[in-house]
Amino acid sequence: MKELQERILREGKNLGNGILKVDGFVNHQVDPMLMDACGKEFAKRFAALGATKVLTAEISGIAPAVSTALHLGLPVVYARKHKPITMPDQVLLTLAPSHTKGRTVELIVSPEFLGGGEKVLIIDDFLASGQTILGLVRLTEAAGSKVIGIGALIEKTFEGGREALKPMGVPIESLARICAMEDDKITFCD
Amino acid sequence: MKELQERILREGKNLGNGILKVDGFVNHQVDPMLMDACGKEFAKRFAALGATKVLTAEISGIAPAVSTALHLGLPVVYARKHKPITMPDQVLLTLAPSHTKGRTVELIVSPEFLGGGEKVLIIDDFLASGQTILGLVRLTEAAGSKVIGIGALIEKTFEGGREALKPMGVPIESLARICAMEDDKITFCD
Repeated sequence: MKELQERILREGKNLGNGILKVDGFVNHQVDPMLMDACGKEFAKRFAALGATKVLTAEISGIAPAVSTALHLGLPVVYARKHKPITMPDQVLLTLAPSHTKGRTVELIVSPEFLGGGEKVLIIDDFLASGQTILGLVRLTEAAGSKVIGIGALIEKTFEGGREALKPMGVPIESLARICAMEDDKITFCD
Repeated sequence: MKELQERILREGKNLGNGILKVDGFVNHQVDPMLMDACGKEFAKRFAALGATKVLTAEISGIAPAVSTALHLGLPVVYARKHKPITMPDQVLLTLAPSHTKGRTVELIVSPEFLGGGEKVLIIDDFLASGQTILGLVRLTEAAGSKVIGIGALIEKTFEGGREALKPMGVPIESLARICAMEDDKITFCD
């Protein structure tokens, strides 16, 4: 998506170690107009799949997932990283290593809001190693539901996430695919 | 706002100790259509104030704040509770006691995205004791900016937040004002 790519070129910063800082419009400050446009684009790309629920992980996945869900007219569930007191004792929980956090995080979903028989569209901010998204896939399958599509705002193709997810055989869409980050140069695949 | 009040009556659960569970449409599963309607309502109520930025706290404030910011055409910043590696060493940080978490949490904003001279509209999911919002006010003032309005989806008037914020002399708007929660009965003020 041209609008997102241009914004990354203008404001994104390569911090080294494969970390792309997009705090000015995705991860700390959010540009709601850009998120709305991204959500609309995801909704268009996944419209034909008949999703019944959007799933993401807190925190940075929330804005693009809510926007996508709005354009699809669906509820969205965000997996929590800490179990809040409002959640029942019995939950779905999986562990996912986080590269940017340098540790393993918990991903927790309440069975109240992710049950069986759902067709789940996963939306997240980044597709890098794919570990967070694989965690969301495990939660979906543990709930007795099926992932029908995966969307990420920004993909770093050199971290292998797409290859890790490919065996699932579902459409994987990213709106900005980065093939290389060297010093101050960010190179998109297309 | 009638739509939100009806949803609270239908799906909200009083867990005791003043804790209202709205995990089905605000805090874990989000109803994006309802959030959009709430954002539109906040935008209408605060339109005349000339805000330049929306500020909220992760995690549950993000959805209503992004939606409000979209309808106002403004960027939104969400205060982080843990400093991510993408944030500079020098940050704005304050502490706020969290009733639902039973401990004090950090609220962190990067000076890159909250500087001086901004007219800040604070949006959050709950106005209860007002402690989180007061933390966001301190961050705004430390940045050299001014809070010009405060909005919350749900206010629990019996926890004193409005009284704590009143001395600031800015408009405080909530879309559902709860005056009492007794067993299964939730009573709105209006």
